[in-house]
Amino acid sequence: MSAEQAAALIQHGDHVGMSGFTSSGYPKAVPPALARRIEAANQHGNVFRIGVWTGASTAPELDGALAKVGGIELRLPYQSDPTCRTRINAGEMEYIDIHLSHVSQFVWFGFLGKLNVALVEVAGVLEDGRLIAASSLGNNKTWLDLADKVILEVNSAHALGLEGMHDIYYGTALPPNRRPIPVLHPSTRIGDAYLHVDPAKVVAIVETNIPDRNPKFTPPDAASERIAEHILDFLEHEITRGRLPRELLPIQSGVGNTANAVLSGLDKGKYKGLTAYTEVLQDGMLEMLKSGTLAFASSTALSLSDEGMREFLDNIDYYRERILLRPQEISNHPEVIRRLGVISMNGMIEADMYGNVNSTHLMGTRIMNGIGGSGDFARNAYLSIFMTASTAKNGAISCIVPMASHVDHTEHDVQVVVTEQGLADLRGLAPRQRSKVIIERCAHPSYRAALQDYEDRAQALARSGRAGLHTPHLLREALSWHERYEETGHMLPQ
Amino acid sequence: MSAEQAAALIQHGDHVGMSGFTSSGYPKAVPPALARRIEAANQHGNVFRIGVWTGASTAPELDGALAKVGGIELRLPYQSDPTCRTRINAGEMEYIDIHLSHVSQFVWFGFLGKLNVALVEVAGVLEDGRLIAASSLGNNKTWLDLADKVILEVNSAHALGLEGMHDIYYGTALPPNRRPIPVLHPSTRIGDAYLHVDPAKVVAIVETNIPDRNPKFTPPDAASERIAEHILDFLEHEITRGRLPRELLPIQSGVGNTANAVLSGLDKGKYKGLTAYTEVLQDGMLEMLKSGTLAFASSTALSLSDEGMREFLDNIDYYRERILLRPQEISNHPEVIRRLGVISMNGMIEADMYGNVNSTHLMGTRIMNGIGGSGDFARNAYLSIFMTASTAKNGAISCIVPMASHVDHTEHDVQVVVTEQGLADLRGLAPRQRSKVIIERCAHPSYRAALQDYEDRAQALARSGRAGLHTPHLLREALSWHERYEETGHMLPQ
Ligand SMILES: CC(C)(COP(=O)(O)OP(=O)(O)OC[C@H]1O[C@@H](n2cnc3c(N)ncnc32)[C@H](O)[C@@H]1OP(=O)(O)O)[C@@H](O)C(=O)NCCC(=O)NCCS
Ligand SMILES: CC(C)(COP(=O)(O)OP(=O)(O)OC[C@H]1O[C@@H](n2cnc3c(N)ncnc32)[C@H](O)[C@@H]1OP(=O)(O)O)[C@@H](O)C(=O)NCCC(=O)NCCS
Repeated sequence: MSAEQAAALIQHGDHVGMSGFTSSGYPKAVPPALARRIEAANQHGNVFRIGVWTGASTAPELDGALAKVGGIELRLPYQSDPTCRTRINAGEMEYIDIHLSHVSQFVWFGFLGKLNVALVEVAGVLEDGRLIAASSLGNNKTWLDLADKVILEVNSAHALGLEGMHDIYYGTALPPNRRPIPVLHPSTRIGDAYLHVDPAKVVAIVETNIPDRNPKFTPPDAASERIAEHILDFLEHEITRGRLPRELLPIQSGVGNTANAVLSGLDKGKYKGLTAYTEVLQDGMLEMLKSGTLAFASSTALSLSDEGMREFLDNIDYYRERILLRPQEISNHPEVIRRLGVISMNGMIEADMYGNVNSTHLMGTRIMNGIGGSGDFARNAYLSIFMTASTAKNGAISCIVPMASHVDHTEHDVQVVVTEQGLADLRGLAPRQRSKVIIERCAHPSYRAALQDYEDRAQALARSGRAGLHTPHLLREALSWHERYEETGHMLPQ
Repeated sequence: MSAEQAAALIQHGDHVGMSGFTSSGYPKAVPPALARRIEAANQHGNVFRIGVWTGASTAPELDGALAKVGGIELRLPYQSDPTCRTRINAGEMEYIDIHLSHVSQFVWFGFLGKLNVALVEVAGVLEDGRLIAASSLGNNKTWLDLADKVILEVNSAHALGLEGMHDIYYGTALPPNRRPIPVLHPSTRIGDAYLHVDPAKVVAIVETNIPDRNPKFTPPDAASERIAEHILDFLEHEITRGRLPRELLPIQSGVGNTANAVLSGLDKGKYKGLTAYTEVLQDGMLEMLKSGTLAFASSTALSLSDEGMREFLDNIDYYRERILLRPQEISNHPEVIRRLGVISMNGMIEADMYGNVNSTHLMGTRIMNGIGGSGDFARNAYLSIFMTASTAKNGAISCIVPMASHVDHTEHDVQVVVTEQGLADLRGLAPRQRSKVIIERCAHPSYRAALQDYEDRAQALARSGRAGLHTPHLLREALSWHERYEETGHMLPQ
């Protein structure tokens, strides 16, 4: 069937569960065709808007195209598309930012309403109807199970060599009938290698041959390299203290530059036989698998550069032994993350002096991307590490602030904060002790005095009896840095 | 051995792991003796301060006595004692507020330093050295396993009928060797009925005969009864919609008045055969067990009024079939809470318009109690409900505010907010939709207009391009209500 014909099966008001996780495995033909249909409807004065549910972020052909024509009524659970972001922050599109591990169960519970259509990219279809999944799994199993209608995009650009690399758990159940998820190691297989779909629900199959739009791999900048060094020193220190085994514990690493820098640092170090239990597998991990630093990686998506993808495809038999792709309800499952004792490393927008972390909002009001899986990992990790450069926008923004303008990870869930300036180990520290190390170790020198001044005056106010000394703050000034940035373009008076 | 002799075995600087969870099962003789010793040391000009680690809150004989003499250097993971609170907020005592499920593993991981002494109350000692645990388990297993020295208080005031009511999991391990926690139902036994201790470590046994200082049971006030009605209506509605089974899912309920009102409402309703998976079992649940509304309850502590305790003891054989007490690492384990699909109901200090919840800090700076188990439950629950009266201090404080002055549960973890005014179901709502229902349904009428005005002006600012419309805020005013309360004693201009 053509993409246009398939797109015609989607109606205004539908909730559509689409495949896609970090620009891999997203449907590539139907969303643009749907965008054209929506545009035509708009031109005839008809409203045509749908709910777009995915695994996580996708690519311009999906989020970008649909957001551009104003076709998205509601987006969940994660996005990182510039057009979506603009629309959301302009109030033209609703966005629900959900822990990635919560999505599938919320749909099963009936909390998000009916799923009308599943639009899922696959790598192939077996004779018996089972599906070879593509380069990401995300929520595909859930969409196929729960949607009224299913549209498949069968993308021959995906190597059929992906076959066998998926592990799709079919034991998920609703409470009170849930059982333990029997993953004991990143490599434990607990499911089926194929996706299942009820053939009676399949209303369209669209054939495509379009590669994933792989992210560019940019070499790490100086700040990322410094952050990586601090983390590597810290891990070594933990090994020396007997708090981590030599082969560490399974690594989770967010997307981006800094994450790749840490991985590449690990790869250059003396590590062997590490494992990863993560949601995205980037070039950094592929290199580690190649060198043997990493023995095994479990993920829900492959997010490789073109070069990484070539390496992967050229040696797919090697990698098939060393990679498992799982549904995100398993890759991000609190039960499994906690059992395995994952070392979690994620980026952030800002942290405050007390270790509360903002992963999602710029200046408290504008969404950036979303919380993604960072909460699933941070709360349940053995070690939860958050990292950022100490400043943004050429130093006009301090990423260490008096009070976070939005909180995604509370003081209870943040154990280590790292910037290029240094690393603050917050374990076992009470709030005022935390603010001391965060200001000293993590703040940029150009903000350190201002932070110290805020802290001193907040403590003085508390000592005068007009506030508490547990978590001292000057309520009037707590968000003044953000306010000043909005008004003057710089967080400090110039 | 006398309490004085035992107290002499504790040294300045020691970390002492004490039993105790909501005024049950705390050591009753040694802490007061230790407080006297500390006072004497102070009078001789000697510093004597220890780290006090417990299950959760305790009683005046422990927290109160030690805090009064300034004997606590560091307290974790939860407290609710007035003297402790004053000391913490005066900067005289450090306090680390930790998710209850994290405590035991952090100690095992070595993140909090060495545990020098375990001071644990038990109900009895068997001939073979195994211990009959008391009315709470908390972290006792961990303290006994990890401390260098063990002091036992054997309290004959605890009914020996408690024997057999505990289920102490001895399968906990460190990653990478952890296995699934095999609890499939609140009644599943996975452990041993007795605590174990290495006899070589036991340096003192002190005999006592002092009942737990049970909390008074006060009949629910009008606001609590209204909150309970809203929750009961909501649960009925969920059953009607097919989103909850008739016998619900296991209930978790925080301590306090409102919690008891909800339970008593459930008890009057048409429910039968419910279950509870919770950390504290209060009078409300005992009554439900008696009436048959509740078929089974799993908890880590019994927190009964004197009257409740009498009922319990008089019918202990009946209750022994229907209650299990577990270590808090199991009662609060994310894995189990998520698997069972708990309905979680907890109190809060305040919620903001967008559904971020503050459970711990008054006016952003003063600690009240701590996060306790609320995060373990809310994040992993099937349904996470937070409740409070809409105002405090005779209306001078709105518990619905523009921005929470401290965040313990983020917008990602809060599904339902309830006050006596009404219930806001936040599932599937984006931030501006959430603020609409929270203001309309939950805010007190005397604050509704001011909240609406804030929201309107925040949206107008965002529409002007000077902020984002995803989560509109006026950074300058976001915390001004709290500031005004601190300055004038009322959140609104009078
Ligand atoms: C927080 C997050 C946005 C950081 O991403 P990153 O790529 O490392 O961040 P960068 O430093 O490149 O910053 C991204 C942008 O935010 C801006 N920024 C960074 N810190 C900022 C701050 N404190 N205030 C305002 N803007 C800031 C940067 O200037 C940059 O802007 P630009 O795109 O206009 O140049 C990203 O990690 C994220 O979305 N995290 C949440 C999801 C998550 O953690 N998932 C984990 C599993 S994958
Ligand atoms: C949040 C919490 C303190 C509410 O407890 P509660 O007994 O229902 O609350 P109350 O309404 O009686 O209020 C307690 C006090 O806080 C004050 N208060 C309530 N809301 C307030 C607010 N928004 N700002 C300032 N003070 C407030 C009350 O006036 C009262 O003060 P008082 O003791 O001086 O009279 C309590 O639920 C808690 O500690 N929660 C965190 C731990 C938890 O959730 N555990 C769950 C598993 S048990």
